[in-house]
Amino acid sequence: MKNTVLYFLGYISIFVGISLIIPSIVSYYFNEPYTTLFIALGASVSIVGLVFRRLFKKPETVDFKAIILTVAFAWILTTFIGSLPYLMSGAIQSPVDAFFESMSGFTTTGATILTDIEVMPNSILFWRSLTHWIGGMGVILLIITILPSFGVQGMQLFQAEVSGGSINKKISPRIKKTAMLLWAIYIAITLIEIVLLMFGGLSLFDATIHTFGTVATGGFSSKNASIGFYDSPYVQYVIAIFMFLSGINFILYCRFVLGEKTVLFKNTEVRFYTLLILIFTGIITFDLWGKAYQGLEQAFRAALFQVTSVITTTGFITADFDKWSNLAKMLLFIAMFIGGCAGSTGSSIKVIRIYVVLKSTFIEIFRSLHPAAVKTIDVDGEVVPYETIRKIFRFFVAYILIFAIGSVIMSFFNLDIVSAMSATAATLGNVGPGLGLVGAVESYAFLPAAAKIVLSILMLIGRLEIFTVILLFSRAFWES
Amino acid sequence: MKNTVLYFLGYISIFVGISLIIPSIVSYYFNEPYTTLFIALGASVSIVGLVFRRLFKKPETVDFKAIILTVAFAWILTTFIGSLPYLMSGAIQSPVDAFFESMSGFTTTGATILTDIEVMPNSILFWRSLTHWIGGMGVILLIITILPSFGVQGMQLFQAEVSGGSINKKISPRIKKTAMLLWAIYIAITLIEIVLLMFGGLSLFDATIHTFGTVATGGFSSKNASIGFYDSPYVQYVIAIFMFLSGINFILYCRFVLGEKTVLFKNTEVRFYTLLILIFTGIITFDLWGKAYQGLEQAFRAALFQVTSVITTTGFITADFDKWSNLAKMLLFIAMFIGGCAGSTGSSIKVIRIYVVLKSTFIEIFRSLHPAAVKTIDVDGEVVPYETIRKIFRFFVAYILIFAIGSVIMSFFNLDIVSAMSATAATLGNVGPGLGLVGAVESYAFLPAAAKIVLSILMLIGRLEIFTVILLFSRAFWES
Repeated sequence: MKNTVLYFLGYISIFVGISLIIPSIVSYYFNEPYTTLFIALGASVSIVGLVFRRLFKKPETVDFKAIILTVAFAWILTTFIGSLPYLMSGAIQSPVDAFFESMSGFTTTGATILTDIEVMPNSILFWRSLTHWIGGMGVILLIITILPSFGVQGMQLFQAEVSGGSINKKISPRIKKTAMLLWAIYIAITLIEIVLLMFGGLSLFDATIHTFGTVATGGFSSKNASIGFYDSPYVQYVIAIFMFLSGINFILYCRFVLGEKTVLFKNTEVRFYTLLILIFTGIITFDLWGKAYQGLEQAFRAALFQVTSVITTTGFITADFDKWSNLAKMLLFIAMFIGGCAGSTGSSIKVIRIYVVLKSTFIEIFRSLHPAAVKTIDVDGEVVPYETIRKIFRFFVAYILIFAIGSVIMSFFNLDIVSAMSATAATLGNVGPGLGLVGAVESYAFLPAAAKIVLSILMLIGRLEIFTVILLFSRAFWES
Repeated sequence: MKNTVLYFLGYISIFVGISLIIPSIVSYYFNEPYTTLFIALGASVSIVGLVFRRLFKKPETVDFKAIILTVAFAWILTTFIGSLPYLMSGAIQSPVDAFFESMSGFTTTGATILTDIEVMPNSILFWRSLTHWIGGMGVILLIITILPSFGVQGMQLFQAEVSGGSINKKISPRIKKTAMLLWAIYIAITLIEIVLLMFGGLSLFDATIHTFGTVATGGFSSKNASIGFYDSPYVQYVIAIFMFLSGINFILYCRFVLGEKTVLFKNTEVRFYTLLILIFTGIITFDLWGKAYQGLEQAFRAALFQVTSVITTTGFITADFDKWSNLAKMLLFIAMFIGGCAGSTGSSIKVIRIYVVLKSTFIEIFRSLHPAAVKTIDVDGEVVPYETIRKIFRFFVAYILIFAIGSVIMSFFNLDIVSAMSATAATLGNVGPGLGLVGAVESYAFLPAAAKIVLSILMLIGRLEIFTVILLFSRAFWES
C-alpha cells in the first residue's frame, strides 16, 4: 500500500511541477526576477515525481485505504509545494502564512493573509490564482472520475456527490474520455470568461486571474478591492454569471455536450440552486434598495453578486457587506452553509444535501401524523435510497458539529462570536471572507499562527468532505 | 374530537383557576390591592372550566390528534389566562408584553420584558414565578405520565424523552400512582430548596420565588440582578446544585424513591450531563481565573453557576457574562443547545440526544472504514433501536433548521447577528437571557411586538419539542 500511495504522489508531483513552470512566463513577460525560480522549482519537483514514479510500480489493485491516504497526502503535499514560491520569492515571509495561502488556493477557499495584494509581483499572484484553478479541476476529476473509477462508490460522501447525474449509467465505461471531456469543458469555460472579461476592459493578466478565481469558485483577486475594483456592471454581471455556472454539477455539462440538451433545466439540484439564489438575492435587494444603494439595479447587482459569490463558495466581493444591514449579513452567513451543487467546484454542504434535508424534515412532520404513509424523496424522478438519506443527515450533523467545535477553537484565540463563527464557516465551507474581523475588506493576516493552522485544517476538511480527513485521525484506520 | 379537546381544556382551566387564587394570599400578606383580583379571576376561570367539564363528556377513547390539539391549545389557553393578572393589575400595559411574559413563565423560559423587576408588586412577581412552577410540573407530567398513558408512545419526540428509564416496564401500570409520586418528589425538592435558601438568609417570599425558578429550570427572579443580588456563596451553591438536580430525569427520582438506590449514578444520560457541566465549567473557570475573578473559588463558582444555569436552560445569572471573554461567551452560547436530561424540567435539545448524535457520528466514521462492522449505540446497557437514532437525528436537524429560520426572522427586526442568534437559541431552548442586546443584564422589552410574538412561538415550539407545534400548522393535520 505504501507503494501505491508513493506511486500516485509521484504522479501528482510531476503534474504540480509542470504547473509551477507556467508562472515563469508571467515573470518573464513582466520582467520580474522569478523566471528562473519557477523553472528551477518546477523542474525539480517534476524530477522528484518522475523518480518516485520509477521507483514504485504502478499498482494493479488499489484498495479503499490507499485511495483515502493518497487523496489526503496529495492535497497536503501539493499545499507544501505550492507554498514554496511564496517563501522562496520572499513574497510571504512566514512559512505558516505561506502554507495557509497555498491551502486556501488549492482548496479553492480564497481566504488570504495578504493585507496589500497589489504590491505583490504578478507572477506570484498568477501562481496564487493558478492553485485555485488546479484545485478546482482536481476536485472535479477526483469526485466525478477518479474515485468512482477505483470503485469508491460505497464511500458515503462521494456517493451523494454523483447524485447529480448517474455517471456510471451514462458515461462511465469511458473514464478517460470523461476526464478529457471534463478538462475540455473546464478549459472552454475558462477561455470564454477570459475573453468576455477582456471585452470588458480587463488586461489579459487580470482577466485570467479573475477567471481562475471564478471557475474554481476560489475568490483570489489581483486587486485589494476584489471585483469592487471594477465599476463596470458588465464585468460584475459576467463574473456573477460564471460563478453561477461554476457552481453547477460538471457532469451535467458533460451530458449537455453529449447531446442531452435539456439536462440543465430538468435537474432538481440546479433548479433548487437557482431558486435559493433568487430568494436570497430578492430579499437582500429589497433590503439594500433605497438604503445602501439608491438605484434598484445597483441594489440588485450588489445582492446578486454577493449571494452568488457566497452560495457558490467563491468569495469575490463588490461591496463591503460587513456594512450592510443585519438581515443581509445574517442571510450571507447562512448562505455560507449552502455551497454549490454536488460535482461542481463549489464546496460547503452542497445544494442537493440541503434539498434532501429540508424535504425529509417536511416529510417527517407529515409521517409523524400518518405513521403508515411512508413518503419517499425524489431527485430527478428517481427515489433517493434510504441509505443515501441517512448518510446525508449524518453528513449535515457532522458538518454542524465540526462547525461548532471550530467556532469554539477560534474563540480560544479571542475572536468575538461573529468573527469566530464566520471564520470557521468561511474556511470549512471554502468560501473565503467572513464577517467582522475576517470580513469582506479584512484579511486573515492578524491571526496567530496556531489559528491559521486550525483554519487550514478546516479548509482541507471542507474540501475533502469531512469524513476523508477525519478518517486519517481515526486510530481504527491505522490499526486495521 | 372537539368534545375531547374541550373536556380537557375545561379540566385544565379548573386547575389554572385554582392556581390563580394562590397569589391572593401574597397580596393580602403584603397589603397589596390585588387580593380580590386574584380571587375573582381564579374563581371565574375555575367556574368556566367546571361548566366546560359538565357540557362535554369525558371521552372514552382519545386519539392521537386530540392529544396533540389538547396539549397545544392547553398551553396557549393557559398562557392567555396567565397574562390576565399582569394586564388587569396594570403591572404590564401591553397585551403582547403580558402574553410574552406569561408564555415565558409557563414554558419555563425566564425571558422577561420587565426592565425593573423590583418595582413590581410582590403578588404579581409571585404569580409570575408560579407559572414557572406549574409549567415545569406540567411538562414532567405530560411527558412521563399523560402522553404514555394515552398510548402516545410511537410519537417520535416523546419516545426519546422516556429513554431515561423504561417507565412502562417499571411503573406504568400505576399511572395515577406515578403522577402522585412525581408531584410528591417535585414538591419535596421545592420545599427542601425553600428551607435551604431561608437558611441562607432569604425571606420566605424570595426563597419561594427563586425556588420556583430553580426547580422548573425557569429563571424568573424577584431581583434585577437575579442571583447576583446575593453575594453569599452558600446561596449561589445551593441554587446551582438544585438547578443541576432539576435538570435530571424525574423518572430516575421515582425509581430512586422506589428502591433503586444506584439508578442515578449508573444512568448514561446523567453521567454525560455531569461530564458536560464539568468540562464547560473547567474551561470557563481557567478562562475567568486571574482575569474576571482573582480568586480560584470565585472563578469556579461563577463558571459553575452560569454553565449549570445555561445547560439546564434555567437562565439565572450571578454575573454579566456578556462581559466575559469571547471563549466563555461562545461556550455559553453552545451550551444553550444542550439542555437538561429528558424527562426533566429542562428544555432545548436534551443531553441524551446530544449523546446519541455525538456517539453516532463517531461510529459513522468508524463504519465508513469497515462497512461490514455495524456498530450499535448503548444507553444504560440497552441497544438504542435504529428507528430511535433516526428520529433523534431528524430532531437535531429540525432544531438547527428552526434555529436558522428564527435567527433570520430576528435579524429582520434589525438585531445584530449575536443578538438575533442568541435570542432565538435562548427562547427556542427555553433558556431565557441571551447575549448582546438580549444579554444577561438586558431584557426583551425593547423588541417590537411582532418580534415578541415570534419569540413566544419559539418558546412554545421548544417546550413542546418542535414537531407537536409544527403539526398544528401542517395542512395534512387538518385535512385528515
